[in-house]
Amino acid sequence: MSEGNVEYEDVPEDYRTLGGRGLISTIVSDEVPPVCHPLGPNNKLILAPGIVTGTQAPTSGRMSVGGKSPLTGGIKEANVGTRFSQTLAKLGIKAIIVEDQAEDGYSLLKIDKDGAKLMDAKGWSGEGLYKVYEEMMGEFGEDVDICGCGIAAELSGANSGVAFNDLEGMPSRYAGRGGLGAVMATRGLKFIVADREGAPGVGIEDEETFKKGREKLVDALHEHDVTKPGGALNSYGTDVLINIINEVGGLPQRNFSEGRSEEASKVSGEEKAEQIKERGGERPHMCSPGCVIQCSEVWTKPDAEDPVGVLEYESVWALGPNCGIFDLDTVGELNRACNDLGLDTIEAGNTITIAMEGGVAEFGDGERALELMEEIRKGTPFGRILVNGTKYAGQAFGVTRVPTVKGQAIPAYDPRAIKGIGVTYASAPMGADHTAGYAIATEIMGIGGEADPLETEGKAELSRDLQRSTAVIDSTGYCLFTAFAVLDIPEGLEGMVETVNGVLGTDLTVDDISEIGKQILKTEREFNQAAGLTEEDDRLPEFMREEELPPHNEIFDVPAKEIDSVHGS
Amino acid sequence: MSEGNVEYEDVPEDYRTLGGRGLISTIVSDEVPPVCHPLGPNNKLILAPGIVTGTQAPTSGRMSVGGKSPLTGGIKEANVGTRFSQTLAKLGIKAIIVEDQAEDGYSLLKIDKDGAKLMDAKGWSGEGLYKVYEEMMGEFGEDVDICGCGIAAELSGANSGVAFNDLEGMPSRYAGRGGLGAVMATRGLKFIVADREGAPGVGIEDEETFKKGREKLVDALHEHDVTKPGGALNSYGTDVLINIINEVGGLPQRNFSEGRSEEASKVSGEEKAEQIKERGGERPHMCSPGCVIQCSEVWTKPDAEDPVGVLEYESVWALGPNCGIFDLDTVGELNRACNDLGLDTIEAGNTITIAMEGGVAEFGDGERALELMEEIRKGTPFGRILVNGTKYAGQAFGVTRVPTVKGQAIPAYDPRAIKGIGVTYASAPMGADHTAGYAIATEIMGIGGEADPLETEGKAELSRDLQRSTAVIDSTGYCLFTAFAVLDIPEGLEGMVETVNGVLGTDLTVDDISEIGKQILKTEREFNQAAGLTEEDDRLPEFMREEELPPHNEIFDVPAKEIDSVHGS
Repeated sequence: MSEGNVEYEDVPEDYRTLGGRGLISTIVSDEVPPVCHPLGPNNKLILAPGIVTGTQAPTSGRMSVGGKSPLTGGIKEANVGTRFSQTLAKLGIKAIIVEDQAEDGYSLLKIDKDGAKLMDAKGWSGEGLYKVYEEMMGEFGEDVDICGCGIAAELSGANSGVAFNDLEGMPSRYAGRGGLGAVMATRGLKFIVADREGAPGVGIEDEETFKKGREKLVDALHEHDVTKPGGALNSYGTDVLINIINEVGGLPQRNFSEGRSEEASKVSGEEKAEQIKERGGERPHMCSPGCVIQCSEVWTKPDAEDPVGVLEYESVWALGPNCGIFDLDTVGELNRACNDLGLDTIEAGNTITIAMEGGVAEFGDGERALELMEEIRKGTPFGRILVNGTKYAGQAFGVTRVPTVKGQAIPAYDPRAIKGIGVTYASAPMGADHTAGYAIATEIMGIGGEADPLETEGKAELSRDLQRSTAVIDSTGYCLFTAFAVLDIPEGLEGMVETVNGVLGTDLTVDDISEIGKQILKTEREFNQAAGLTEEDDRLPEFMREEELPPHNEIFDVPAKEIDSVHGS
Repeated sequence: MSEGNVEYEDVPEDYRTLGGRGLISTIVSDEVPPVCHPLGPNNKLILAPGIVTGTQAPTSGRMSVGGKSPLTGGIKEANVGTRFSQTLAKLGIKAIIVEDQAEDGYSLLKIDKDGAKLMDAKGWSGEGLYKVYEEMMGEFGEDVDICGCGIAAELSGANSGVAFNDLEGMPSRYAGRGGLGAVMATRGLKFIVADREGAPGVGIEDEETFKKGREKLVDALHEHDVTKPGGALNSYGTDVLINIINEVGGLPQRNFSEGRSEEASKVSGEEKAEQIKERGGERPHMCSPGCVIQCSEVWTKPDAEDPVGVLEYESVWALGPNCGIFDLDTVGELNRACNDLGLDTIEAGNTITIAMEGGVAEFGDGERALELMEEIRKGTPFGRILVNGTKYAGQAFGVTRVPTVKGQAIPAYDPRAIKGIGVTYASAPMGADHTAGYAIATEIMGIGGEADPLETEGKAELSRDLQRSTAVIDSTGYCLFTAFAVLDIPEGLEGMVETVNGVLGTDLTVDDISEIGKQILKTEREFNQAAGLTEEDDRLPEFMREEELPPHNEIFDVPAKEIDSVHGS
């Protein structure tokens, strides 16, 4: 970026069988000095589609974005489902590495079948992304996919995500967590526009194996209750969890002060699906072509006005119940503001909650919450506090009950009520991240076994197994939700591995998954250690270890030794 | 504080021979959980006079204040010269430990010869400390000394100091560094008022040894050029260093962008002494009774109006040259604002500089700098950014050239031009702290040997020796400036040890100093390690390792291995 150059490089042989998260973590580990300032010249932004992304493999349009995180100070891979990933893969691009910093002004990287070039993007800075993405689609045509960062990133916010367009062209798909938007903006890169017209497609080494595997996996996804058409995810989206997690007492209220609310059903997936139907939004809906699960949706204002995009469970919780807000329209507008400004919803919701606990707003005051988002848009000092996330806002407002791990806000499952997910929050290299080892599957949904959510025993092992398999899934390009099916249906898992073998010409087996995942996690943890993180960073916040959560009145009591055993020898 | 109780405890035998920093570090290590939130219920604020404080030992009115630092996340001992310390010692108090948090409202702890009690302090919160200290002196009488925290601490600012009155009753003496004011305020304690009337005094076990040692030390202080009456410190105060450090190219300009300025002499100690004489301020002056060196002063507006107190070298630099400000009146008013609000000057000056680099103010604009202080007074969001210090402001304003170690701002000596002090900044358990191992003495002043400031060789050893002896001096209650004399005059050092033996009835020798210092540092570093700090926290900022400093065009190039050898085996 310092010289405005774009160069293509052949994929080194060492990297050939890597993709997505595994590739990102390897490049970050190889090329980024662990102690560098995340927003200084030595950090890099890396984007990589998964191994099978861009092929006919089902539900595999995932994109990994990574670098050193300004939020956690450690390694970061953020993961998103978007056609952009498929387009990149079809253009024959294994990864984009954005290096150095431009002297001044923002650029746009345009990629198509003929090559890639940097262009001036100045006209599109300082603006909301809904408008910008619409304008860019107008300028570059319907065949492009866009990745970009927003006003939050221009403010160098530690809460700034990387936005990707959904199939309607809206900036609603986010590699949201960890502040990678600011890493992008401080390189001087504002957008990447990828044109899929005439893209050659992804080469497959062994078509037969690929096809065999694909069929097994599609069958599994069609068979499992969670992933099948008309199943829970397809019918209600991820927000189906509101009622479920509320029922088990793990839906955090008012900055993790309680685990259940009588009002929760007002923002449930069931209620939302009903509303979408009435309003004329869309449900179900795909985040990227070729998805069998189709858990997405297009939420709108009444009468199908002003579409927002999907409202995911974690977003609804963060911007809703945890702020004392139980109104889908307010949640929708807050989600729109996050998408428009380039904010991660989980971090933004937790930040608003902290402002409420700090007395700068009232719990339940949705209008005030929307005003806070406008402070960010205007770049006021108040906005500069909020754009830096939960922990940062806690310090500004003197709040000590700050729900973060490694500086990253805790998502929508209280770890005192569901302890395995707490082990994941604590020990995942990425900071508090439910997707890093989604113990909810087993503890609440009974997938891949069963486990009492209030029990501490066995949770280190559960989290370890899930973190390893997740690291692999995040590398393949498959959506994590495929795991619901393949954890229960062995043929599905076999099929998944076969599609990878088909693409790469490898002969991996199901038994290799754990070891590959272990290696990815090892690479990530070694980066973190070199960056100065220690086992004391693998802990839940003090208040969760001391303050009981109603209704179960439990603290988080998984011993530190257990947590350390997740990645320990 | 949670129950409003005050209890006296006998000094445990283990603690009998400890004092000041050594006692603080031991209590913090014994009683404060290293991973606790510094502003949460589990931190403690501890105050302790030195071992010989309150006796006739010369220049020994030092007070140590400690706890877990909200600025560094590690252990903190901040050190100040004040009669408060002598009063406490004479009242027979070895240490004050402030525990737990009050439910609401601020208290005041009143201590006199008859005992101690908590009183309501609500009327004195939210106010500037100059006014409050004057009112409190009016209410409690001329025989009291006051310790307190200001508006910065009420905002939970990571830059908030603990203020002590000078001999005029002004809040100009600070245990400033590391945010201990916020630790005090979050306990619910706003002031401590200590009445020296009828205080029984400090017991001395061996009067003869004490007297003999005292004479030797007084002789040494009277003899050495730096400490003697009419010597450099006595004539010009610490600000005598402006011209000296500017001359060697180590006086940081505009956020550590250059090491020398042609305008520096406008804020030099020589110029200031002249101005004080003309205005009718006071110079020389004592910070506490019994001081032989008398380096302090009373800076005022013209015609002796509105006295501020002392303007130390590091304060003048931080609020002056590093902000592009070369006007003593502006520096004086900025220093007044810091004293009034309860801010550490070094941290505050660096924070203003970051705001300037971040484009929120112009370098050299003193009026704007004063306005920024008023943002803190008003508690605006902008003020809440500034009150949290240099690193925090860097994040808000997108500045990556942030001069901090362990989150604490670097003082007035650029480590690229004077490398031994850089080793101290990097390796001191307290964060960037020149007083922790004042290599300037040897590198620039030729005290205790000589060393080329630009040379890296031998600087680990120099810093190690100084850090160990400093840890001991900070425990005795002697001012660090006595070291200038005792490093050059062996009899002075002997005398110092004899006064300690006299008070305690011990038989320590000069040879024991290094080992005692080593133990104190070990205790402190073990706390930091348990709090999650690593050797990566023992590093100067990235930009100082990459960006050359004019006029010498040097980077900080002491190898990490050398830094780690300071405390390594």
